[in-house]
Amino acid sequence: MRARHFPPILFVVAIVSILAFSRPPATTGADPDDGIPLVDYVRPFVGTQGEGNTFPGAAAPFGMIQLSPDTEKELWETASGYEYSDSSIIGFSLTHLNGTGIPDLGDILFVPGVGTPKFIPGSKADPDSGYRSPYSHEDEEASPGYYRVRLLNSGVDVELTAADRAGMLRLTYPASDSAFVLVDLSHVLRWNVVWSNVRVENDSTITGFHLVNGWAKERYVYFAARFSRPFDDYGIVKDGKAVQYDTYRFRSRSEATGKSLQFHARYKTRRGEPIMIKVGISAINTANAMKNLEAEIPDWGFERVRAETRGKWNRELGRIRIEGSREEKETFYTSMYHLFLAPNVYQDATGEYRGFDQNVHRADGWTNYAIFSLWDTYRAAHPLLALIQADRDADMINSMLAHYDQSVEHLLPVWSLQANETWCMIGYHAVPVIVDAYLKGVKGFDAERAYDAIRTTAMNPNYDNVAAYARLGWVPFDKENESVSKTLEYAYDDYCAARMAKALGKADDYEYFMKRAGSYRNIFDPAFDLMRGKDSQGAWRAPFDPHRYVEGGDITEGTSWQYTWYVPHDVEGLIALMGGKERFVRKLDSLFVSRAEESKGVDDIQGRMGEYWHGNEPSHHIAFLYCYAGEPWKTQKLVREIMRTQYGNKPNSLCGNDDCGQMSAWYIFNAMGFYPVCPGSDGYAIGSPSVKKAVMSLSNGNTFTTIAENLSERNVYVQSVTLNGEKWNEPFLPYDEIKNGGRIVFTMGPKPK
Amino acid sequence: MRARHFPPILFVVAIVSILAFSRPPATTGADPDDGIPLVDYVRPFVGTQGEGNTFPGAAAPFGMIQLSPDTEKELWETASGYEYSDSSIIGFSLTHLNGTGIPDLGDILFVPGVGTPKFIPGSKADPDSGYRSPYSHEDEEASPGYYRVRLLNSGVDVELTAADRAGMLRLTYPASDSAFVLVDLSHVLRWNVVWSNVRVENDSTITGFHLVNGWAKERYVYFAARFSRPFDDYGIVKDGKAVQYDTYRFRSRSEATGKSLQFHARYKTRRGEPIMIKVGISAINTANAMKNLEAEIPDWGFERVRAETRGKWNRELGRIRIEGSREEKETFYTSMYHLFLAPNVYQDATGEYRGFDQNVHRADGWTNYAIFSLWDTYRAAHPLLALIQADRDADMINSMLAHYDQSVEHLLPVWSLQANETWCMIGYHAVPVIVDAYLKGVKGFDAERAYDAIRTTAMNPNYDNVAAYARLGWVPFDKENESVSKTLEYAYDDYCAARMAKALGKADDYEYFMKRAGSYRNIFDPAFDLMRGKDSQGAWRAPFDPHRYVEGGDITEGTSWQYTWYVPHDVEGLIALMGGKERFVRKLDSLFVSRAEESKGVDDIQGRMGEYWHGNEPSHHIAFLYCYAGEPWKTQKLVREIMRTQYGNKPNSLCGNDDCGQMSAWYIFNAMGFYPVCPGSDGYAIGSPSVKKAVMSLSNGNTFTTIAENLSERNVYVQSVTLNGEKWNEPFLPYDEIKNGGRIVFTMGPKPK
Repeated sequence: MRARHFPPILFVVAIVSILAFSRPPATTGADPDDGIPLVDYVRPFVGTQGEGNTFPGAAAPFGMIQLSPDTEKELWETASGYEYSDSSIIGFSLTHLNGTGIPDLGDILFVPGVGTPKFIPGSKADPDSGYRSPYSHEDEEASPGYYRVRLLNSGVDVELTAADRAGMLRLTYPASDSAFVLVDLSHVLRWNVVWSNVRVENDSTITGFHLVNGWAKERYVYFAARFSRPFDDYGIVKDGKAVQYDTYRFRSRSEATGKSLQFHARYKTRRGEPIMIKVGISAINTANAMKNLEAEIPDWGFERVRAETRGKWNRELGRIRIEGSREEKETFYTSMYHLFLAPNVYQDATGEYRGFDQNVHRADGWTNYAIFSLWDTYRAAHPLLALIQADRDADMINSMLAHYDQSVEHLLPVWSLQANETWCMIGYHAVPVIVDAYLKGVKGFDAERAYDAIRTTAMNPNYDNVAAYARLGWVPFDKENESVSKTLEYAYDDYCAARMAKALGKADDYEYFMKRAGSYRNIFDPAFDLMRGKDSQGAWRAPFDPHRYVEGGDITEGTSWQYTWYVPHDVEGLIALMGGKERFVRKLDSLFVSRAEESKGVDDIQGRMGEYWHGNEPSHHIAFLYCYAGEPWKTQKLVREIMRTQYGNKPNSLCGNDDCGQMSAWYIFNAMGFYPVCPGSDGYAIGSPSVKKAVMSLSNGNTFTTIAENLSERNVYVQSVTLNGEKWNEPFLPYDEIKNGGRIVFTMGPKPK
Repeated sequence: MRARHFPPILFVVAIVSILAFSRPPATTGADPDDGIPLVDYVRPFVGTQGEGNTFPGAAAPFGMIQLSPDTEKELWETASGYEYSDSSIIGFSLTHLNGTGIPDLGDILFVPGVGTPKFIPGSKADPDSGYRSPYSHEDEEASPGYYRVRLLNSGVDVELTAADRAGMLRLTYPASDSAFVLVDLSHVLRWNVVWSNVRVENDSTITGFHLVNGWAKERYVYFAARFSRPFDDYGIVKDGKAVQYDTYRFRSRSEATGKSLQFHARYKTRRGEPIMIKVGISAINTANAMKNLEAEIPDWGFERVRAETRGKWNRELGRIRIEGSREEKETFYTSMYHLFLAPNVYQDATGEYRGFDQNVHRADGWTNYAIFSLWDTYRAAHPLLALIQADRDADMINSMLAHYDQSVEHLLPVWSLQANETWCMIGYHAVPVIVDAYLKGVKGFDAERAYDAIRTTAMNPNYDNVAAYARLGWVPFDKENESVSKTLEYAYDDYCAARMAKALGKADDYEYFMKRAGSYRNIFDPAFDLMRGKDSQGAWRAPFDPHRYVEGGDITEGTSWQYTWYVPHDVEGLIALMGGKERFVRKLDSLFVSRAEESKGVDDIQGRMGEYWHGNEPSHHIAFLYCYAGEPWKTQKLVREIMRTQYGNKPNSLCGNDDCGQMSAWYIFNAMGFYPVCPGSDGYAIGSPSVKKAVMSLSNGNTFTTIAENLSERNVYVQSVTLNGEKWNEPFLPYDEIKNGGRIVFTMGPKPK
């Protein structure tokens, strides 16, 4: 690490950083160029407008609690609960999904106000019909671990900050005889609260929980909330009616159960008086929620929590440090920020966590994580975590193995969500995550145990027609939907399983899975040079329209024209099937100009360049295939174009669902100039770096630096590469060249070389 | 204990008893007269017909699991789920309430059958419309810890037995290709399952839970069930439809969540083949349910479990041993049996239990109990447990104190039901339970802590207008329903609080509560010589009909004419108010001939002798008041008449709800010749014993024997009494004369003496 000079003012910042973050300056994440802490480059609003489905609220890295404003609770398109274009806020809930395509979470809503509280949210068209409040982006700000907005209906300033399992709200009221805080336990995004309870534990503390039947079909969220001032008065509303003692026989007004519960605390406030609420959550019970709260926020230090979380972010963001323009840095560090929002810690301070069997387990020596959007994140998000967050990646794998142990189906997670399996999407992509981590030297999980889970999962005869696939060599479309996509993704997953079998010395398994890895060939129709559905008798799907998406058809969220390219583990084989590199390239070129028929079910996938749809994951590896076909300059041009057009620092900059960081991870890799086309393999394809310099601190302690000389917006083509000073002629970068640290230097130019 | 001879055949029985029960013969509970084990006198069907609301199934003493057939799941009148007059059985569920007036429990139903299973219960009128089956009492038997019935629709013999937290079903099938066991998780008596899940853990094990919003508003029951044979096939039905993988994307057929779930195991059976199921329950999670199961029933020894539980019952029943006719013994030991069915252990084998705050707590060094029907059981049931089950009574008190600690209202339980408070009935009758135990020398709870809870409860300003009562001296009827009954019961409870305050040396508290204990005087209207509602201005209720029950009026489940007698702690004071013993007796006589107006709300209270209604608790102490007024012979005549007419050994023998053993405890005390008119005071009123001899093994190790000389059906009057050989002239028996053991001998005759 090179020595630096601090101008006086920045020196103060550095000192504060040292004090606040308790780390040496080298890891505070202050940019060596401009002295601005990396955390200040993050724009949490990126992706909140349109398809990104991110949220702007306050969260710690991989935090269990993620407090954020909700503007929408019904629409599928607003899966995170916040849409930048909305002009009113429902309230502030405790948990959120980053960038998924399906809504859930948004648990337990806090709403401050003045006047007579309303106990329903009200509508966007008429916010005043409920507790919804108009707000203005002028009076709103967000940074990692902090969010602030002014609610225009009441003049209350709301500030949010978050530790790992507990967060705080600071509510600054106008002078009022009728200030209130409403807590709506019936609030959840999109789905249904099937049960809840609330208890007023004392004059300033409530606890409660709700059970949600949502995308996760049985999900428990417990909370404990302490208020900085004793309630002047309080009440509970159930099904729209006040819970009160009716002088017949006693009925507690301090506790209630049901499907629709609201608690409200009432205050007389002085002008500008802050009322703070600290709230802990747990998936197990309210006692643990309280323990989480007391462990993380023992006092009322809102600014302390904010500073600590800011420090955590700064450190995490510093795992890759870039040089570049302000916009590039904002885009890059926001991508890092989004990548580090999920998967989430899902374990209490006690070490206990709720397992997939809904029992309480204890993670001894590791941390349990939840929310695995694996169909997305196996592609680039986990491969990046394996490099720069290896300890967490190992624990994510330990979490998947625990899930496997607790699974009645004996399956690794498919799309698991807080002690539930949504069975969303296809494949068994926990396999590439584990294998890639193993082959990249991630320590901290038991490889033999992991392989056993991989093998059992990949052999599970009950899952999505894997048995027929194993027998026939393809998933027959007359037996199973999305048969082409499943065949292709199974084949890739099997390649990964084979790689791990080989590494563990299991030669028979290696042979078996490598054979299955070649299954893609069985559905390649040479008549079209395309992947095509085949039934259990071996007959091709007819009629066959390769540009058309059919719901329940052979392709997952796309077309045959797109999915045909999904042979990441054997691009050479695919090239051969297509008759060589020239024909392969010609066909690949056509992808970026052809058009799919518009169809319901994929109409919300944006980021389109012809039939290449960057807004959805099946396209993510495609631009790099030119590297395999001898025309890497096309890759270079494309990835720079994608970075330029599909990413940015604005609320509407994300062209598709961030998908728990996959979209962001794509950007991060590519900004550095390479991309893991085939996680579980040895290397990466080289693209075209978009930033001048990137210094990646590997989890193994080494540092890998990428430098782009002569970089400009026009200079998208790689002219030459040196790796540790040696000329490098391949458009691929092996992991072995990264792991020991080093330096790759790209020399860029305006024309292909 | 006297020496005995065993005839050879009985000697074998004794040996078997020794082996089976691992106790010396003295405690095996074999009757010294006839050698028949006491357990064989129990008639579990007593109280199953009509108002008794008992259940005939299999349970261990105070057991957490109580497996029993359900014939009815909707009617309030069949609170235990079983009505002897019903001719069809729905199935066999795992938990039951003994003798309450409101249904709940009946959790998780097991139904064997053959053919195509139906997934709805069907109706009594047309059992074949569902899984209901006709049955015959000819083919049904029940004994403590064991129940058997033949289901006539399928020919399956069902046998049930129970350990403490786990039980077994032995299902003997005909030869069938389509035998099944259905498990209906949506089954609960009367109320609603709001959520449930089920998991097929392996080829012969399922786990699951349901959450019930019932009388207990949020109640969790988890279970784990192992089947003795792997399923030939199985399925889950949700909302009437099979849960199955539909080849779109994977859906597990081995787990489901929802409100209406049924699991069915399918078998091919040989004729007479038994399939056994062992099932454990827990209020915490399925892992604990499994631990309970494995701890208590590690093997498939149905007969072992049955014998062990039979042994436990025999020992518990032996705490009082009587001589008498077979009918008397059956009535007596059945009463003992019913008394020992509740409160129930509510704690897992791990020591963990679900508390009133729904958190998991650990009871270290004590056992947590649940189901406290305190308005009933404080009268005689707990006073009897204090004598012969002191350790359990102490832990019941520890359980109440834990409830208090966990109560947001800072109240001891009123009518608590498995980690819930139903707020059923009136008063704060945990107080007399605790005080009576304390004054009777029950050890094992912290007296100062208990008193603190008593004081806080009795001073709680939020509860049922206690604050107004404390201020005014009565509960004002314009502010609170049931004001007369509440005033009277509060005053009695306060007397108990005062007694404990005095014992602990809290003189001021003693004075304070003794003053409140005199509050009954404030609502005594000398114009009527009756208790009468008074409003907050001191005006009497008008119009005033002392023989009429008014729903929401001044009296709880009865009339002023009945409740006027409720001054158990100061009968002398009541006599004085009424102008002396003669007028008191004249009025009391009239109770047994007057008639209440028939009114809705009390029309189901039976056991009527004039306006004395033995079928409900407010009358239970009244017959003994003659003892205080110089005419104990009237008490003697009445109690013998009540025992003769309101109790017995037949299904319809119980005239009223057993109310968790209170009706039974009344009988047990009276069979021995005395009754606790005022628990928390020093003694008992002497009645008229109905059995020749009763030997009560006190928990302190001493033995108290009652002997009735010259006893016959006509000889109901006590001619003379000796206590330890000394003549005894008082119609009261002080606790001090019992606690050290001893012998009371009644000489009976046909005429009052």
